[in-house]
Amino acid sequence: MSLILTFLGKGGSGRTTMAIAAAKKFASSGKRVLLVGQDPGPTLGLLLGETTSNSPAEITPNLSVVQLFSTIMLEQSWEQIKELEAKYLRSPTLKNVYGQELGILPGMDSALALNAIREYDKSDRYDVIVYDGPGDNNTLRMMGIPEVLSWYVRRFRKVLGDSDVGKVLAPFIQPITSAILNVSWSADDLAKEPSDRANNLLEEGKAALANPKRVTAYLVTTADPIAIAAAKYLWGSAQQVGLTVSGVLLNQAEASEAIATEFAPLGVNAIPSRAGDDWQPLIEALPDFQTVSQVPQPMTVDLAARQVRVFLPGFDKKQVKLTQYGPEITIEAGDQRRNIDLPSPLRGQPVRGAKYQSGYLVISF
Amino acid sequence: MSLILTFLGKGGSGRTTMAIAAAKKFASSGKRVLLVGQDPGPTLGLLLGETTSNSPAEITPNLSVVQLFSTIMLEQSWEQIKELEAKYLRSPTLKNVYGQELGILPGMDSALALNAIREYDKSDRYDVIVYDGPGDNNTLRMMGIPEVLSWYVRRFRKVLGDSDVGKVLAPFIQPITSAILNVSWSADDLAKEPSDRANNLLEEGKAALANPKRVTAYLVTTADPIAIAAAKYLWGSAQQVGLTVSGVLLNQAEASEAIATEFAPLGVNAIPSRAGDDWQPLIEALPDFQTVSQVPQPMTVDLAARQVRVFLPGFDKKQVKLTQYGPEITIEAGDQRRNIDLPSPLRGQPVRGAKYQSGYLVISF
Repeated sequence: MSLILTFLGKGGSGRTTMAIAAAKKFASSGKRVLLVGQDPGPTLGLLLGETTSNSPAEITPNLSVVQLFSTIMLEQSWEQIKELEAKYLRSPTLKNVYGQELGILPGMDSALALNAIREYDKSDRYDVIVYDGPGDNNTLRMMGIPEVLSWYVRRFRKVLGDSDVGKVLAPFIQPITSAILNVSWSADDLAKEPSDRANNLLEEGKAALANPKRVTAYLVTTADPIAIAAAKYLWGSAQQVGLTVSGVLLNQAEASEAIATEFAPLGVNAIPSRAGDDWQPLIEALPDFQTVSQVPQPMTVDLAARQVRVFLPGFDKKQVKLTQYGPEITIEAGDQRRNIDLPSPLRGQPVRGAKYQSGYLVISF
Repeated sequence: MSLILTFLGKGGSGRTTMAIAAAKKFASSGKRVLLVGQDPGPTLGLLLGETTSNSPAEITPNLSVVQLFSTIMLEQSWEQIKELEAKYLRSPTLKNVYGQELGILPGMDSALALNAIREYDKSDRYDVIVYDGPGDNNTLRMMGIPEVLSWYVRRFRKVLGDSDVGKVLAPFIQPITSAILNVSWSADDLAKEPSDRANNLLEEGKAALANPKRVTAYLVTTADPIAIAAAKYLWGSAQQVGLTVSGVLLNQAEASEAIATEFAPLGVNAIPSRAGDDWQPLIEALPDFQTVSQVPQPMTVDLAARQVRVFLPGFDKKQVKLTQYGPEITIEAGDQRRNIDLPSPLRGQPVRGAKYQSGYLVISF
């Protein structure tokens, strides 16, 4: 198991530079590091001054780099799907379609990248995985897969399990989802209770995300007010997918009281500009990523007071919405919907009141 | 029908600024303009100095702005799916799930945004739609939906039409795909010939993309060599989804011979920095987007010489790969796979040779 570290912020604020500096810092302290670049373009390689490829290669002691290509990952994944199909279906139909033909549709990049990170994590070859992704809402969508998909599973299990469509889809769902996400999800599973889910990957993913010693993000911003606003928005949005934000890297600017206030209670580290190939000043200015800082808990439930407090910093009051259409409460913010399965005395209870203040949504039952 | 204009380039190179300036330019010349922002964060509103929302609002004469929120679009789309399900299935199962509960998974943003743009285009309320999207590979994935999905349809039609799974899925495919992409795609259609496809939306989308008077992109870059390299990579990658790149906007730098050479034969317009709220110098420096410049054709087929020339600028030789596993030829570049259904004398013929030089892939049969 590795520490998975990523960076969020407006494009051009220096996320890839921070990812490289962080990877170099860990490697120089003796940790085995994998730097994972998601963008297939030339940026990461040019900033590193190295040729990057689709399989991890050690560029300096302890520091390996891999650049993800969805075309290649999909090709490999397709072979697994075909094997599974041949195993589960009486008349396999996919054997005449080749992985080398398959185009990439939106969403595949994220699913394949998350799966790749999961496999590198499982391999025990790396102490730290530094993920240089799109760093915006798209990174959050990827990190949100366990949270959102597990809601779809629990919500639709009952609905589909009873239906004609569900019975008909079940034999097909098994091989496809097994191949893509390793979720064991057969016709039988559709009828089973949530306790069975503990073993599945979505729950493992949610647990990893909920633990800032396993997965954490830092905000990257310059002193530009628009970059600061974008970073704050991503800070709040990250809570919606269960991703802990542990601090702020202020790139190419001096720390100020005003900026510290914007991001309180997070720590802000000012990072100097890079001069040529000298990464040392940046490395020295970075925080100690392994000391988990004291950041507010994403959610606290006070059963006695019948109150739930959800940490949602960085939003305007109008941007946070609470609804209760389905069996769970739904929080809408940051163009994300998060459904919260509350512990049993509060589960299914009507909400009596809610207010959003000082970065917290306080819900009373 | 509108002209749909978008901008590609490295994050932070000024894409949103260019999108706003372009929208203002069109509006001041009397065109009805819709500026569509995809990122749910605060950047677009702050740069515009206006509050933006999920429905188009006119902020100055002729210029309307809308910010896309996937949560809201999915909610609306879900209601359509439920209506369709109730219409097509004997025992509708989705009626007890509410659009207001649904979380967003990767890929939904792109599919919903493309659908929104299509509907604004169809509305005949706008002469020009300026789309400010992620501007990187994710924009290309979205623009690639018609091209890639229509390949999946033609490749899997035969495979699935004959199979148990296909027969079983058909009644479910109809309502879902109808709701999301308005593709009429029933069990009958699975067996029909390609001539039927002319009416469907994927073909319409491909036709629009193939016509630079309907859909076109401009590259945005600063003078930073990494931003230039990223823009060049996106230039080539855009060809892979059939999107025409018509020119280059060089932001906050003077035009130079060296930069002109990098992007030849595209024209390069140098755009000055913005001082305060004065957009006029930027607007004046922009090209006339409606004069379609002479850019190389994406693909030319010479039947007599049995040769196909594919325009693929901006790549290194090693980054372009040609394979022929399936019934079509497959070009892999820019982490995209493009399958080309050649005209009939060359269709299904083995490739005799291929070379990549001066930005062209030349394939001989």
